Amino acid sequence: MNPYLHTIQYYETDMMGVVHHSNYIRWFEEARCDLLNQLGIPYALHEQEGILSPVLSVNIRYLQTMTYGQTARVEVFLLRLTGVKYSVGYRVYNHATGELCVTGETGHCYVDQNFKPISLKRAKPEWFEMLKKLEVTENEKS
Amino acid sequence: MNPYLHTIQYYETDMMGVVHHSNYIRWFEEARCDLLNQLGIPYALHEQEGILSPVLSVNIRYLQTMTYGQTARVEVFLLRLTGVKYSVGYRVYNHATGELCVTGETGHCYVDQNFKPISLKRAKPEWFEMLKKLEVTENEKS
Amino acid sequence: MNPYLHTIQYYETDMMGVVHHSNYIRWFEEARCDLLNQLGIPYALHEQEGILSPVLSVNIRYLQTMTYGQTARVEVFLLRLTGVKYSVGYRVYNHATGELCVTGETGHCYVDQNFKPISLKRAKPEWFEMLKKLEVTENEKS
Amino acid sequence: MNPYLHTIQYYETDMMGVVHHSNYIRWFEEARCDLLNQLGIPYALHEQEGILSPVLSVNIRYLQTMTYGQTARVEVFLLRLTGVKYSVGYRVYNHATGELCVTGETGHCYVDQNFKPISLKRAKPEWFEMLKKLEVTENEKS
Repeated sequence: MNPYLHTIQYYETDMMGVVHHSNYIRWFEEARCDLLNQLGIPYALHEQEGILSPVLSVNIRYLQTMTYGQTARVEVFLLRLTGVKYSVGYRVYNHATGELCVTGETGHCYVDQNFKPISLKRAKPEWFEMLKKLEVTENEKS
Repeated sequence: MNPYLHTIQYYETDMMGVVHHSNYIRWFEEARCDLLNQLGIPYALHEQEGILSPVLSVNIRYLQTMTYGQTARVEVFLLRLTGVKYSVGYRVYNHATGELCVTGETGHCYVDQNFKPISLKRAKPEWFEMLKKLEVTENEKS
Repeated sequence: MNPYLHTIQYYETDMMGVVHHSNYIRWFEEARCDLLNQLGIPYALHEQEGILSPVLSVNIRYLQTMTYGQTARVEVFLLRLTGVKYSVGYRVYNHATGELCVTGETGHCYVDQNFKPISLKRAKPEWFEMLKKLEVTENEKS
Repeated sequence: MNPYLHTIQYYETDMMGVVHHSNYIRWFEEARCDLLNQLGIPYALHEQEGILSPVLSVNIRYLQTMTYGQTARVEVFLLRLTGVKYSVGYRVYNHATGELCVTGETGHCYVDQNFKPISLKRAKPEWFEMLKKLEVTENEKS
């Protein structure tokens, strides 16, 4: 999988002269969706098939500020995938310098259009298998 | 009708140290919806009744920058209302100093859930009449 | 201290029909700044005095979706305050029903305009004392 | 100059199921900055050289809704450039279908860090000449 590149936009900065902290959570979404695009199962297709995937939790650590004129490289890791839930890890780098700037993790579930939990394993077993192969091993996590 | 007050948020500023220009268009929406709330016909109720009201156009003039720590007062004017379209005018003031900072106008129509044009006058004549009374006269426009 | 009320805006919703998860982190900021306003030491004043307070971490749990037409009540708790760092807890309720929808915590530090760590206790002892009194006790945390 | 491609993000949609109208003004900024990048005079460089370029006005017409899963192609035109002011035109297309969805125009000036007007022609004659060559002719405008 290719890492996701995000060109930092002026409207993402704040008066501190750096990227406002709320934007990284949006880049996480961008990178997560880009991964699904690369796999050929875009999130838009999920919703067309009646599979929604809301966010249950977000954890972020800000290590270094980023600012306008820089490009962010977001690396995405599928940490855990059960039939009904999954969690994703992120590392955001300054693409030019390689410096690690932000790390994070998001938790998700699968629901139908009435927000009732569903199992991806049952609803789309072939999608589940494709994703399951990306799950990082215990060794990779550490 | 009471004018709408918006407390400027840190996340609305950019690295120029002022409110990013894209936010004012959101304050227009806030003030427009606040007006409908004051009339007792919230926009949420419109959508529940199957009446959507997308934006057709926006014009903004930026006269003075605003920044964090200030409160914006947004005055809203119903400029024109036909059965199927309407346009709204806005004046954004620095609430503390009274200085006029931004002016604007938005154009809208009424559509159903399939984005087919509908007439508010026919769908909700009592709402139409309530709004029609707010329409500014030719004299007030100038 | 009064809890902070946030009127949910249309632009905060997404195509799932609910508030996009990235917005709650912005309401945390709104509520945090509102608390400082109530104390008479607005964050804007911090920056004028050369005291910046960047975000080091954010954790959020999403328990219930919220949507347009609702009002959010954000309760804010100062969890820990040392001279140089502090953390803040949040509970977001549906104001009309009292249902708890989102919980969260943010970590912060104090820096000068060159992003060098500073001690609020040393820079502004009277502000520090005012805030210290708000720190929740161990019993309140549980 | 290459047109600018923007992958529509989930967080840019609203509960109407389409891109919220406030986002297009941000894509205008993205495309404008991308043009400067292509010319080798990034906007970040402008600010480093003490040249700020605030937005004076925005006009937008929304012709067709766009939604998540689509890619927007933004074409940018330098409409007028004097020493101290310029205006830029935009056409946003659905990249896959070629359908024109949004048109717009933004007005700008050049100021120094104290927001005093300056002339790009005087401050950076070589940048001015580079941009002047992109100015569309009267025929192209129609």
